[in-house]
Amino acid sequence: MDRKELTQQIREKQSFLCVGLDTDVTKMPQSLVEAMKKEYGEDNWLFPAIWEFNARIIDATAPYCVAYKPNLAFYEAYGIDGMMAFENTIEYLKENYPSHFIIADAKRGDIGNTSKMYAKTFFEGYDVDALTVAPYMGEDSVTPFLGYDGKWVILLALTSNKGSHDFQLTEDKNGERLFEKVLKQSQQWGTEENMMYVVGATQGRMFEDIRKVAPRHFLLVPGVGAQGGSLEEVCKYGMIPDDIGLLVNSSRGIIYASQGEDFAEVAGQKALELQRQMAKIIQDS
Amino acid sequence: MDRKELTQQIREKQSFLCVGLDTDVTKMPQSLVEAMKKEYGEDNWLFPAIWEFNARIIDATAPYCVAYKPNLAFYEAYGIDGMMAFENTIEYLKENYPSHFIIADAKRGDIGNTSKMYAKTFFEGYDVDALTVAPYMGEDSVTPFLGYDGKWVILLALTSNKGSHDFQLTEDKNGERLFEKVLKQSQQWGTEENMMYVVGATQGRMFEDIRKVAPRHFLLVPGVGAQGGSLEEVCKYGMIPDDIGLLVNSSRGIIYASQGEDFAEVAGQKALELQRQMAKIIQDS
Repeated sequence: MDRKELTQQIREKQSFLCVGLDTDVTKMPQSLVEAMKKEYGEDNWLFPAIWEFNARIIDATAPYCVAYKPNLAFYEAYGIDGMMAFENTIEYLKENYPSHFIIADAKRGDIGNTSKMYAKTFFEGYDVDALTVAPYMGEDSVTPFLGYDGKWVILLALTSNKGSHDFQLTEDKNGERLFEKVLKQSQQWGTEENMMYVVGATQGRMFEDIRKVAPRHFLLVPGVGAQGGSLEEVCKYGMIPDDIGLLVNSSRGIIYASQGEDFAEVAGQKALELQRQMAKIIQDS
Repeated sequence: MDRKELTQQIREKQSFLCVGLDTDVTKMPQSLVEAMKKEYGEDNWLFPAIWEFNARIIDATAPYCVAYKPNLAFYEAYGIDGMMAFENTIEYLKENYPSHFIIADAKRGDIGNTSKMYAKTFFEGYDVDALTVAPYMGEDSVTPFLGYDGKWVILLALTSNKGSHDFQLTEDKNGERLFEKVLKQSQQWGTEENMMYVVGATQGRMFEDIRKVAPRHFLLVPGVGAQGGSLEEVCKYGMIPDDIGLLVNSSRGIIYASQGEDFAEVAGQKALELQRQMAKIIQDS
């Protein structure tokens, strides 16, 4: 999906919400787990449970979001069953919600020939729209992901966690911080049409600094909700005219909002609440 | 596997060789691919081909190496088939070569709750000895991997690729380079008994600088062979008394040394050559 299509979706839905599919069987409604065990047996319930949970969450939230972000860690943790559920989820999205942007949150990045394999996996095999990539290994670890039409690298810049302070804020001799160097340098590799950046919602006013270096790039913003980031603050300092330039992600705050049988309905409500806040922010801007 | 067991293996075998299992069906002998297609059919040959290739490489090289490093990118690229081959390879190693150290080269690293899932996958699920981890997201992205007895984090410090110059060599105000900061800071999180570092063989004399900051840690050293690093130089500047402190990896230089039906035999010879060089270096040291 190219930038124009993405921003068009945002305008139409008045939403820049991304729903994070961090599907964890220990956190999903136990009634669903029990039903799946009964239907598929103790040895075979895992794949259908993850998959059923995702499909119901997707159906309930799709009208209010423009993107989905399955987090690979959660699927890999369940081995082959998990990866089958991941594959099915991508296929389901592509078939039923082709205008939603799909981000594989995998934070990959390796030497050139290895990054090339990861690119092939995610952009040719799974055919997702975007992949999160870690910048530590530099240019040749990132560029293999950039050769695909309509596909995006989402490079880690300033993450939402406490550990973001350990290295990302380190200043060089000229006072430039590592995340700024990542933003600057990587703009020689990719463009506003094939590269976004991860900036945590917990970083508050740092969005001002980000926009000084990357005024037009889309930012993927995790950390609203469970991690405590503020949507208003993110938009105040990070939103850009016309294109919005933000995809704000919520995972746990939506998908685990209810542990009951109404989990999908409640997830839909939570997504709707965020969409309404976003619509208001867009209209007021 | 703990440090004592690992160094004992190195002493016994007079080898600190790690064989990288970057298994790529386009690079393996086409005679093997054809045989597998004939036996399992056009739709089902992938898993048995990867798996057969690995088993034969392992049997041929096991006497000359102390570690194996399957690179997840190559298995993920083949979807479910690839992941089944990865699982089988780990099981095969554990059953038949239990004294070999198994490194999953996956370069993971994410916010705490996600890193926890990756740790569960690799240390509880696959039960490998070590996992490569990317440091960009800092402490809470790394520590979830450190809570497992006998398991190791292998943190990226100074990698073998050209892009290592982009960020890893950035000097802060005090002249400390990012890789040195990573080495120093991470020593507050882990110990010489549960943390190693990736340092590329292509970095030559930089091993001197690494040893100033991490005098006793084991280093995983990729880049000998196809990438052009020198074993002599790595050992001259990076080897430590008693424990050796190095695991030198070769992937393509061993596993793709022959494209013929003798691929496993030739891989064994290449591993033996490296083992002999290592034995000489150990004896001369």
